[in-house]
Formats: sequence, C-alpha cells, structure tokens
Amino acid sequence: MKPSSSALFDGVLARGEVATAVGDDAWLTAMLQVEAALAQVQAFSGLIPQADADAIAGCARPEHFDAADLGARAAASGNPVVPLVERLRALAGPAGPSVHLGATSQDILDTAGMLVAAQALRPLLADLAACADQAARLAREHRDTRMIGRTLLRQAVPTTFGLKAAGWLTGLDAARRRLEQVRRERLAVQFGGAAGTLAPFGDDGPDVVESLATLLGLAEPVVPWHTERTRVAELAGALGGAAGTVAKIARDLTLMAQDEVDEASVAAGPSAAPHDRKPVAAVCALGSAASAPGLVADLLAAMAHEHERAAGAWHAEWRPLRELLVCTGSAASWLRAALERLLVHPDVMRANLARATTASGTADDAADAAGVLVDRALQAHTKSP
Amino acid sequence: MKPSSSALFDGVLARGEVATAVGDDAWLTAMLQVEAALAQVQAFSGLIPQADADAIAGCARPEHFDAADLGARAAASGNPVVPLVERLRALAGPAGPSVHLGATSQDILDTAGMLVAAQALRPLLADLAACADQAARLAREHRDTRMIGRTLLRQAVPTTFGLKAAGWLTGLDAARRRLEQVRRERLAVQFGGAAGTLAPFGDDGPDVVESLATLLGLAEPVVPWHTERTRVAELAGALGGAAGTVAKIARDLTLMAQDEVDEASVAAGPSAAPHDRKPVAAVCALGSAASAPGLVADLLAAMAHEHERAAGAWHAEWRPLRELLVCTGSAASWLRAALERLLVHPDVMRANLARATTASGTADDAADAAGVLVDRALQAHTKSP
Amino acid sequence: MKPSSSALFDGVLARGEVATAVGDDAWLTAMLQVEAALAQVQAFSGLIPQADADAIAGCARPEHFDAADLGARAAASGNPVVPLVERLRALAGPAGPSVHLGATSQDILDTAGMLVAAQALRPLLADLAACADQAARLAREHRDTRMIGRTLLRQAVPTTFGLKAAGWLTGLDAARRRLEQVRRERLAVQFGGAAGTLAPFGDDGPDVVESLATLLGLAEPVVPWHTERTRVAELAGALGGAAGTVAKIARDLTLMAQDEVDEASVAAGPSAAPHDRKPVAAVCALGSAASAPGLVADLLAAMAHEHERAAGAWHAEWRPLRELLVCTGSAASWLRAALERLLVHPDVMRANLARATTASGTADDAADAAGVLVDRALQAHTKSP
Amino acid sequence: MKPSSSALFDGVLARGEVATAVGDDAWLTAMLQVEAALAQVQAFSGLIPQADADAIAGCARPEHFDAADLGARAAASGNPVVPLVERLRALAGPAGPSVHLGATSQDILDTAGMLVAAQALRPLLADLAACADQAARLAREHRDTRMIGRTLLRQAVPTTFGLKAAGWLTGLDAARRRLEQVRRERLAVQFGGAAGTLAPFGDDGPDVVESLATLLGLAEPVVPWHTERTRVAELAGALGGAAGTVAKIARDLTLMAQDEVDEASVAAGPSAAPHDRKPVAAVCALGSAASAPGLVADLLAAMAHEHERAAGAWHAEWRPLRELLVCTGSAASWLRAALERLLVHPDVMRANLARATTASGTADDAADAAGVLVDRALQAHTKSP
Repeated sequence: MKPSSSALFDGVLARGEVATAVGDDAWLTAMLQVEAALAQVQAFSGLIPQADADAIAGCARPEHFDAADLGARAAASGNPVVPLVERLRALAGPAGPSVHLGATSQDILDTAGMLVAAQALRPLLADLAACADQAARLAREHRDTRMIGRTLLRQAVPTTFGLKAAGWLTGLDAARRRLEQVRRERLAVQFGGAAGTLAPFGDDGPDVVESLATLLGLAEPVVPWHTERTRVAELAGALGGAAGTVAKIARDLTLMAQDEVDEASVAAGPSAAPHDRKPVAAVCALGSAASAPGLVADLLAAMAHEHERAAGAWHAEWRPLRELLVCTGSAASWLRAALERLLVHPDVMRANLARATTASGTADDAADAAGVLVDRALQAHTKSP
Repeated sequence: MKPSSSALFDGVLARGEVATAVGDDAWLTAMLQVEAALAQVQAFSGLIPQADADAIAGCARPEHFDAADLGARAAASGNPVVPLVERLRALAGPAGPSVHLGATSQDILDTAGMLVAAQALRPLLADLAACADQAARLAREHRDTRMIGRTLLRQAVPTTFGLKAAGWLTGLDAARRRLEQVRRERLAVQFGGAAGTLAPFGDDGPDVVESLATLLGLAEPVVPWHTERTRVAELAGALGGAAGTVAKIARDLTLMAQDEVDEASVAAGPSAAPHDRKPVAAVCALGSAASAPGLVADLLAAMAHEHERAAGAWHAEWRPLRELLVCTGSAASWLRAALERLLVHPDVMRANLARATTASGTADDAADAAGVLVDRALQAHTKSP
Repeated sequence: MKPSSSALFDGVLARGEVATAVGDDAWLTAMLQVEAALAQVQAFSGLIPQADADAIAGCARPEHFDAADLGARAAASGNPVVPLVERLRALAGPAGPSVHLGATSQDILDTAGMLVAAQALRPLLADLAACADQAARLAREHRDTRMIGRTLLRQAVPTTFGLKAAGWLTGLDAARRRLEQVRRERLAVQFGGAAGTLAPFGDDGPDVVESLATLLGLAEPVVPWHTERTRVAELAGALGGAAGTVAKIARDLTLMAQDEVDEASVAAGPSAAPHDRKPVAAVCALGSAASAPGLVADLLAAMAHEHERAAGAWHAEWRPLRELLVCTGSAASWLRAALERLLVHPDVMRANLARATTASGTADDAADAAGVLVDRALQAHTKSP
Repeated sequence: MKPSSSALFDGVLARGEVATAVGDDAWLTAMLQVEAALAQVQAFSGLIPQADADAIAGCARPEHFDAADLGARAAASGNPVVPLVERLRALAGPAGPSVHLGATSQDILDTAGMLVAAQALRPLLADLAACADQAARLAREHRDTRMIGRTLLRQAVPTTFGLKAAGWLTGLDAARRRLEQVRRERLAVQFGGAAGTLAPFGDDGPDVVESLATLLGLAEPVVPWHTERTRVAELAGALGGAAGTVAKIARDLTLMAQDEVDEASVAAGPSAAPHDRKPVAAVCALGSAASAPGLVADLLAAMAHEHERAAGAWHAEWRPLRELLVCTGSAASWLRAALERLLVHPDVMRANLARATTASGTADDAADAAGVLVDRALQAHTKSP
C-alpha cells in the first residue's frame, strides 16, 4: 500500500501545531513510550530484569520504525500495534520476550491515544488562550466603543464592541476550562490485558496501572476502560464545544467585515496584497470548525463497544478523533490569527449607530451598563487558568 | 394550525419521566416562572410596585394559557414568548405594564429552557443512578462468576461477569458525574435584554441577574450568554455521552441474550408471555439511544449565533434539545428496566467458558485479578454522588 | 403513560402540512390501510373469505383506535403494531383470525411508514415547487437587475439578482427532482413475514407483494427489505439535500435583509407591525432546516440491521425519520412564505453596485452574460416535473 | 508547515484504491487537467492562441508541482488554486497570461473535485460490484441451505442462508445503482468566473462550459453551481448509503462468526495464523463504514453557501468529502475481502436450526418460498449495471 498524501488542504484546514501533534510520528512516539514505560514498571516490580527494560527503552525510538510500513502491515491483524511489537521484539534481541508483557494491542493504542491527545491539546489550548487574551484586549480597549446591536441580522438597540468581545471572551474561557478539565481528569492510562482483568499481575494489577499512570503523566482509571468510552466522548464533546465557540466569533468577524457593514477588517497577512481585505483567516476558521459536529457524532455513535473488545467501534474512533483534533486546532489557530490582525473601525461603528433609529441617550445607557459587564468578563478571565 | 400528535412511538422511544418533563406544560410553567421571578426581582429593586409583582405571579399560571395556541401564534414573531407576554399582560390588567420589563424573548426562553433541562435531568439522573446501583449489585453478586471474555465477538480469555458489570458501573458513574456537573455549574439564568447589555438596569444589571438566579435555583453567568452557547453544547455533549454509555450496556445485554450464548435473559414484563425472552427492554434502550449522536451534532453545528441574536441558529436548538433529552431519558429508563429484570445464567457462563479453549487455571487467575478490580469499582461507586 | 404534548414550537419549527401528514392519525390510518389491503389481497387469492376482508376493512378505521393508548401498550412488545392487531382482531369478531395473516409487525410498520412518507412528500413537494416558481418569477422579473456579487461576504464583481434567483431555482429543481425520484422508485411495500421468507404463501409470495403494492400505490421490491435499509437512507439523503437547499436561499435572504445591505426585505405578514422588517420567515426556515443533517446521520448510522430483524436499529428510525420530514417540510413552507412576501429593492442594489469599486462597463457585460444563464435556468425549470 | 503524515491507520481504515484516488497527486493532476482543458477550450474559441494552449498543456503536469508546498502557500489566499496558478503561469512563460483566463479558484477546485470523485468512484464501484457478485454466488450456492432466522438477535423462524445473501445482494445493487446515477448525472463541470456570470465570455459562456464538460467527461450544468451544492449533497448521501449497506453485511458476518453461532468464518489471510478465525476483515469494514454518517452530516450542514462564494462553507467540504470517499472505499474493499474469504458452515446452520424450537416442516416451506425470492434477487442482479 502506497500511503496517499493529503497535505494539499492542510494550509487551510490543518493550520497550527495540532496536525503535527497527531501525525504518525507523534503516534509512533507515544506507542513506543507506552511500551517502554510498561517494561520499566515491570522491572520495578521484578517481573522482568531491569536490563531488559533498559534495552527496550533503548530500542523504543521512533527512528527505528516506519509508520507507513506499520500502517500497511496493520491490515493483517486490524491494528498497528501487532507489527510494532513484532519489530520492537526483534530490535530488543535477548530482551525481546520482555516486550509487551501482559498487554494487549488496545492497551497500547488507547494509552498512546491519550498521550497524543494530551500533546495535541497543548497547542490547541495555547491558541485558545491567545484568542481569549485577544478578546480580552479588545473588550478592554473598546469597553466604551458604541455600536448598534443586531438581532436576526437586523439593527436593534445599542451595545458596545467591548461587550461583544466580552461575550467572545467568556465563550473562549468556557471552552478552555472544559478542555483543561478533560485533559486533567479524563485522559487516563488504559491497561488491562486481553479481557481487561489484569490477570497476569494478580493483586498487583492496580499498582502496575498506577505506576504506568505516574510514569506517563496520565490519570489513573478505577478499572480498565477498553470498552467504556466516556473518556473519548467527553474529549469529543469538549472539542466540539471549542470548535463551535470559534465558529461563533469567526461568523461575527465575517459579518462585520462585509463592505456594507465595515466595522472591522482583518489586516492582510505578510503575503497578501495591501488592499486585500478578504477575511481569509475568519473564513478558514469557519471552514475548519465546520467539520467538528459530524465527527463528534461519529465518536458518540461508536460508544457501544461489544463485550471485552469492540468488533469495529474501536477502530471507528481513530480517524474521527484525529480529524476532530485537527479541525478544532486549525480553527483555533486561524481565529488567533484573525483576532491578532483585526482592525476595528470605531468610527464606522459610530456612523452605523448614528444611522440606526435609536436615541443617543439609549446608547449612553447601553454603554454604561455594558461596561459593567465587560469588567466582570475581564475579571473572570483573569482568574481563568 | 392543528397540532399533530406524536404519541404512537412514545411507549418505545419516550419511556420514563423525561418526556413529560420537557413537554409543553413544563415549558409553559417554566416560562411563566421566569416572568414571575423577573417581576419579583424588579419589585425588590423598587422598579415596579410589589403589588404588580404579586398580580403577575397570580396570573402566571399555566392553566390560563394554551400551549398549542401560543405555539401557533409564535409563527408571527418567530418565538412563543411574544404571544405569551401579550396574554400575560392582558391577564395582569393594571399590572400589565410591569410584565416582562427590560426583558427580551430570548431571556425568557433560554432561562425557561435551563429550568426545563434541570427538571428533565432529575428523572434521567435517577434512572441512571438506578442503573448504576443495579450494575453494582450485579458486580457484587457475580464478583466471582467466571465467564469467557470476548474480543471482536470471538471468545478470547477468561474474565468474570462481575468485572463486566463493573465496567458498566464505571461508565454509568462517569456519565452521571458529568451530567451532574453540567446541571450544577452550567445551567444558568440568561438575562440581558435586546442586545444583552442589561441597559434598563444601569449598574444594577448584575444584581438583577443574581437575584433571578437565586430565585430560580440556577447558576449566575458572568455576562449574558444569548449568543455564547457553550452551556447548550456541554449539556448536549453530556447527554450524548450518557446515551452512548447506555447503548454499550444494552448492546452487551442483547448479545448475551442470544439463544446461542444464553448467558443472560431479560425476564418478561408483567404483560409479556411467560416464555417470551425477547430482550425488548435492551432493544428499546438501543433504539432510543441511537438518536443522540445526530442531535448532538445539530446542537454543536448551531453554535455560531450571529451578533446579538442568531438568525436561525437559536431556533435550531429547540427541537433537537428536547429530542435529545427525550431519547437519552428513554434509553436510561429502558436500561433500568432491563437491568432490574435481568436474569443472569452463571451455569451457562460456566459451560461456555469450559467449551472455550482456555486452561481453567487461567480462569482462576483471571477471577482473582478481576475481583480486585470489581472491589475498586464498587468502592468508587459508593463515593459517587 | 401520559403523552407529553409538544406543540409549543410547532408554529416555528413544524410549519406547513408535513407535520400533520406524519402525525399519529396519519400513521394509524396508514397502518390500518396496510392491514385492510393485506386482507383484501388474501381474499383475492382465496386464502381468507372475501367476507372477512370486507369485515376487516370495515373495522380498520382510525376512529376505532387510540394512538396514545397503542403507543403506551407498544412498550410491552417494542412496537405499536402488536396492540393494533389485537384491537383490530377484537373489532373484527368472527373475521378476527383472518387479520394480519402471515405478516409480522415490521411488515405493517415499514409499509405504513412508506405510505406516510409518500403522503408527507406531497405538501413538501408542493411547497418546494411553489418556492421554485417564486424563484423563477424573481429570475424572470429581475433578469437584468444588476447588483454586486459577493465572495467571502465581500463585494467582488457585478452580477444580477436574476442570476442569483436562477441559482436558487436550479437548486430547488434539483432537490425536487431527487425527492420525486425517491418517492416514485424507492417507497415500496415491505412484506415478508417473520424472517422475510414469505413462507406462508409458498410460490405465491411475490404475487401477494405485487398485489399489495398495486393496492397501496407503492413500488414493488425485488425481495423483502426488512433489514436492507437503502430505501430509508435514500429518502433521508434526499430530505437532507432539500433542507440544505432551502437553507442556502434563506441564508442569502437574511444577508440581503440586513439594514446595511437592504437589497431585499420580507414584507410583514398580516399579524406583524407594518414597520417590522425582521426576516422572520427566512430565519424560521434556517432554524427548521438546521435539524436535518444530524437526523440524516442518525438514519444512516442505523442501517446496520442485524440478521432478520434489528435489535434496536429499526426502532431507531422512527423518531428521526418523522423529525426529518417535519423539519424539512417546515423549512420549505417557511421559504415559500419568505419568497412570496419578498420585496426586492433594485434601487438599493443599483446603489450598492455603484458604490462598489467596479467599472459599469463590467456590469453591462455581466448582466448580458448572466441573462443567458437565467434563460437557461428558466427553460430547464419549465421542463421539470 | 511540515505536512504531518497519517498513514498509520491507513492499512485498516483506508484500504483499497480509493485513498490513492483522492490523494494529493490525484487532486493535483485533476486541477491541472482542468486548467489545461480550459486553455484548450479557449483556443478552440479563438480567445487565446492554440500555441498557448499547447504550452499550458505541456506545463500542466503534476511532476512540476509540489502538493505540500501548494498546500502550505494556500493559507495566504484560502485555497490551493492561487499558488497553483502562479506556478503554472511561471512555467508557461510567454503563454502565462493565457492561463486560468476568466476562471476563479472555485471553478478549478470544484471541477477538479468532481474529477477526483469520478476517479475515486471507480475502485469503489468495482469493489461494491465484486461484493455483489460474491453475495450472488453465496445466494446461488446456498439457495437451499436452511438456517434459523433471527429477530432482535433471538432465534425466530427458519430461513435460508441463500435468502440472507440475497438481501445483502439487493442492498449492494441498490447502493451501486445510486452511486452510478450520481456519477453519471451529477458530477458536473463548475465554471462561472468570480460571480458565476461567465461575463468574460459574453453569450458564449454556455458553449465554453459545454466544451469543458465534453473534454473532461463530466456532466454539463444548467448554470454554475458554485453556491448550489445539491451535487455534493447527493454524492454524500449516496456514499453514506453505500457505507451503511456494507455495515449491515459486515455486522451479520461478525455475528455469524461468533464461536457460539459459528455459521460462518472468514478464512485467515496469507499473513494470519492458520487457526486465527478473528473476523478482521468484517471488523475493519465496520470500523471504516462508521465514519460515514457524521461526514455526511457535515457536508449537508455546509450547504448554505453565502451569496456568490461561501465564507467558510465551501472550504468545509474538502476534508469531509475526501474522508467520506476514503472510509466508504475502505469499507467496500474490506467487505470484498471478507466475502471472498468467507467460509460458510452449512452443517452448523443445520444444527443450530435443529436445536431451535421449530418444526422441520416449517423449514421446508420457508426454504421453498425463500428460493423463489433468491431467484428474483439473482435475476435482478443480472440486469444491474
């Protein structure tokens, strides 16, 4: 099988660092990290010689493995861990028999998936935090910038741009808070062996899992979760919420950037023509975020894992989860760019407001009241992680 | 417009108390509760006479309103709050001008939606708790009941039915924990007026919102969330996760209830023939839960609310959110029935295990190790809310 | 079980005739129609006395049945046909044993579902045809009305409103064509008995099915399709496409109705205030259409029906299919209202175009070329069904 | 931007030829094919010199372009056509000004997308045809192989394996028929220029489009469909239906392959151990097909393209459409492998039937009646394309 490349749309739909963080290298590194950690824990417990663990750690390096080759050979067994373990055993020589002891393919892949997700959430959270900081800056700078509020896309009553930005800010902070929580509490080691009993370890099973969790920096589950997929579902839901939050803001930006409204524009990037005011960054944020809802649905629909290993529902998670991380990461990265380059036009806001059939006294009242809310949003942002 | 009834499938797909909790009566009651609370808060602040608030509270009773009529008249403005307020003002007589002061339709509908969701989560959480208790009972009773573990639907290595039930239990507890969290932290008052500025209340806006939140038993938001829909998204995600958790268990039950496997059967209900062993309850749980993923996707896709009130995305939430609560509630209610009536066949489990090509010594080891995990799951369950 | 009413949002999200066409009365009528037709066909074949068929036809009237009661009693068996047949047998007295001969519940419900869908497609197709006619009228009237074309929501190059309407028209015609095709070719009788073998009818099975199809005005399948759900999938896909087509047009309308653009407005309905220019009809079309994608996903995800009757996936179709018909029908009905009441502002279009940085020569060229395309779209429309 | 590879899961989730057919090389080739055809058509019309068209055709070769580089540079404008055209112009030297005349990026990308889809449907349709032929073979060979029919996963009444396979066959034929129809009728050239007017071509616009369609082997649209996305929706729906059809069959296979049922097994592939009877091919078919529903939803939700070019909804199609083709293609390829290697166990079917509480006379009747249906399905298959 010749791997088909798919970079043509990545500049638009896989912006930022998340795509790399969920790429084959990252998965390979994570799977090997899990195998090495497993050997280390078993050496601690005296189940294998420390020398074997060291040898395994020495071999478990991505440069010794070819992701595309493993991917192709995965077809025989239905997952890439089987050929990975074969190769690792071959590399480990005399330590070979100590590789992957008591583990099943799903243990490695699920735990690696959690490590990959944890890595991918870093740039995603960083981009969302930068977006929030930009929204906070806009809210602060435009605390008193009056504009017309719009309902059903029609001019309604006065508000401020500061309050609009404060609304973006609270959405971003909420999305970040939830993603942080999932990262901290729900990304856990999976280790249970073929049927999840941890049978080879007797009473020591939970200790092995605890050590693995510590070594890998993941949460420790109560019991193996090989067919209990609430962790994946919560991650998916949090990503879907983040993508939707980005989409709301990007939608507002494209609407404000209409020539006829003209209340904001995205400054051209380094490579764009100076007069080009197409809101490319906001458009690409919307295009990226739009993939999230269906991918979340696919992951939720795949929760019914049969018995002790699903006959398809497990495999069904891999591509959608990767795609969901990529599209949410891309959306956040684009929004960051859009907000960082945003040019606000307070004069046009003022003019549009003046043309609206609204008494200016009302605008003063609105601005005063809105200011109080802006302050609250900024204060809450300061306290957010 | 003649309302079309839709009860024909409710016995199967709208089981339990959630459907009633999200019905028109519940929505009507909640909307009137919000209007009354708003008047009360404004009386506290001296904005309207207390007598007006009392008069409004006296009129704001569902028996004075006809949901179907409001529904039909909602077509003119695009939402049912407009005709509701008209009617309430008419009923309130001299207190009429004090009705709905400073509020916009979305304030009432969104806050009522949160109240409805809070009410609907009660029976849902109760059913999920009952499911969890049943799973805990099964895990305890069958802590040492050996059976063959199955991967990809093929017999693999020994496990215990106790551990299978413990896996169900941890999934249910996780789903409950998340729903509880959303209920407690994310179901909040929405109040902001036409553009979300709280302009009519000057600096007192946040105090009004706080009082409303206290009176209605909802959380207080930092700023109005009329176009910041992470709350709806988190509720949707938590419901989708709960539905998926139910589906996993129901899938296992239907597979165990196959004649050829015969490791469990759902006892016939009162109205079924005694020899009838069709796993109707588990089947209906699966049928109910299957609607959740798409509805979650619809709600996530509707997050991009334009400006200060969405041109469609807000309306797009109403039916999917109701349907999502109904289908998840129905799934949980069916699963409870299935688990309560479940007949486990340990002798068949033993026989199936014996026929599998597995050394019995391995089964002992598996059972010992699995028992440790069962104990952990039961202990964690004891600590869950 | 008390049926929970749900009419409160119907004025907005269940507009038009489709909701009634998929209501309980319609389903009840359709199920009874299938039972009566089945008896008639069996009388033709001499399998039951003609007198029995006549007696059954006499009893198979919806007024003798209570949908809510059937719905509640459906819980025992998992579908409403079981209590319906019980009641029909009781009503038929001596002809009772001739009721439902050789049929299984799914035969009745699936065939009734196809009848219901066929009925529901009538008003939906009528509304879509009316929308297309309106779009054609607009294309014709505004064949030469110049306006600025917009890409990424930014002014780009000149076009005509006629061409914009012609684009709407071709979308509507495509959506209608596909729905018509599904209605004509894919809505078929389902009849096979418990395992789909038509065993009770020996070699005559196909003849029985053919007669049923003729009597009921549905297509005749090659073999029973109880677990082969491409028909449902194609219906779902066609509805999803229609909803998306409506959404595109409604989105354009809301954007054109912005105060700052002001190129069109929806005239206030009879009950709206004269100055009210909120595009309620377009907004409600968008709100209705937005439910379609997730419901289509749910129906596609439910295609994996196990063996000879699905353990959940069949039940999973009922509510989503009903909801999908309702939301698509509502969207089409709202769009029809929006287009019928649409006020086009050619003077504003001209002014907006003049303000755009485009040579007027270009506008002439664009209008000439666009006119040719408009004519093509109108001609193609004339030929569409 | 370093492109992140993603081949690790391709062996499982991107089996067969479709993944390559939608890879970057295929897209690049298709885009260049469109640019070359456009130049050729313009040379025919005397709009550019034939020598320019020849020069462009000479340069428009994928080996002169780097997909990853174009992908990265696409970020500046929001699509990869802009850098592609820049490079093509540079390569064409004096013929450079004749490149891409009167076209807009979306013209090239949409038409290329249709070419890519047409190419990708070939191996997909070939695999589905092979699946159908296998199902036909099974239906023929096992026309009289009796087995127990199962409803709700419980043994019900007798049927034949031939009829089960005939049901698979009709599903596959329906899915193929629909995909063929979409390929033939709905994959069309998109050409309209910046606002879809074909302004640069005056009255000749439609002729240019017709010539392009002829040259590229695509259908000719009535008017440009840049924001009328029923074609994409129909393609998506047909793919979703095909994936669901595959999933139904693969689900049946995994259920039949259970040790306790044992009515079929998938022979081990060349690389599997001889005793290995894990139904990997069916499991991977299910895992692949499960991504389709959400991706269809994403594509349907992206139909509301604003004005003359969408602000995000267009970009939102690219990855989901590619993923949808890949997952459906992978599912079909796996199912083909599963059916080709399937070992049917008629003796076990007989034994399971004997153990079921069913009179053998009934089984004879069922087999006779089922045989008639099998013959019908085989006859219909013979007539299918």
